[in-house]
Amino acid sequence: MKTQYYTASSLDGFVATEDHSIDWLDHCGGEFSQTSYPAFIAQVGALAMGASTYRWLLKHREQVKATLGKDEVWPYEQPTWVFSHQALPPVPDADIRFVQGDVKPVHEAMAEAAGGKNVWIVGGGDLVGQFYDAGLLDELIIQIAPVTLGKGMPLLPRRITTPAMKLISVERSAGVFAELRYEVAKTR
Amino acid sequence: MKTQYYTASSLDGFVATEDHSIDWLDHCGGEFSQTSYPAFIAQVGALAMGASTYRWLLKHREQVKATLGKDEVWPYEQPTWVFSHQALPPVPDADIRFVQGDVKPVHEAMAEAAGGKNVWIVGGGDLVGQFYDAGLLDELIIQIAPVTLGKGMPLLPRRITTPAMKLISVERSAGVFAELRYEVAKTR
Repeated sequence: MKTQYYTASSLDGFVATEDHSIDWLDHCGGEFSQTSYPAFIAQVGALAMGASTYRWLLKHREQVKATLGKDEVWPYEQPTWVFSHQALPPVPDADIRFVQGDVKPVHEAMAEAAGGKNVWIVGGGDLVGQFYDAGLLDELIIQIAPVTLGKGMPLLPRRITTPAMKLISVERSAGVFAELRYEVAKTR
Repeated sequence: MKTQYYTASSLDGFVATEDHSIDWLDHCGGEFSQTSYPAFIAQVGALAMGASTYRWLLKHREQVKATLGKDEVWPYEQPTWVFSHQALPPVPDADIRFVQGDVKPVHEAMAEAAGGKNVWIVGGGDLVGQFYDAGLLDELIIQIAPVTLGKGMPLLPRRITTPAMKLISVERSAGVFAELRYEVAKTR
């Protein structure tokens, strides 16, 4: 079981614009089915995301359905934990658990639910940073898109330099993305 | 002749800390001589940089000499244009030309001096952005280091999405870096 951060990012380190848009991904070309996502999600047993990511998914249901090729209201079969300080609308028939506060007990529940599969921290960057702070983040799998945004929501607003991460692999993905995989050092 | 931005960057898109330090590169490991830099600089005929980059080079002469393996006060043989609004100390016996303002006429002079070789915009990001704004930037060659900084000096503070850039190559470099090469579209 690994706790992973899988996301697309602009070359300059933003996962979304300041108003939480990822429309810039549409300009990149590349077939979603040709990325590592299908193989990745098959090994995921539990997900966590922040309130902005959840709201984006609700707002863009049709786009998400078209991209993932799923004819369902909610794109994930796995149990999903949503961190939010505010009440958010649930999705009927989806296993969504609203939580707040410390990530540690939530991670324990996720790991148990995952049953040996991986735990995916979908984003945003600050939620991933909280798992990193708690020593719970194992891997980063970043699809770098061939764009710069100049400003936006940060990939991972933390300083991780001592030790540096370990570069596991570097690959071209779906023609247009550079997929970089990193292992986060556990001794710090 | 191509106008290129060759630089190292953190995974989250910073080329230096807020106080212009690149000490974090020391934590990455990897032999400088094993990167593409030696082959890259051999094809460069002229350089441009901003005042902060120039000041950094002056301040870290010993470090630069050790890294580049050059026993000289100034690391570049090529003519170098330094953009600055303030008077900066020159380097004896180095071909350094202080300029300010519009990048276009400077680029013309650089291209002529380069004599068919490439023009390197060393940084910082905003100077590179000015060359991009003028339609003069051809290629990005980015060495992504296995670190995040959380904040710092931006890689390229511009929005380049329509069209997106063209990913030319993706390679592991010196073991620890991911080298990404992009072509900047000319029709925009």
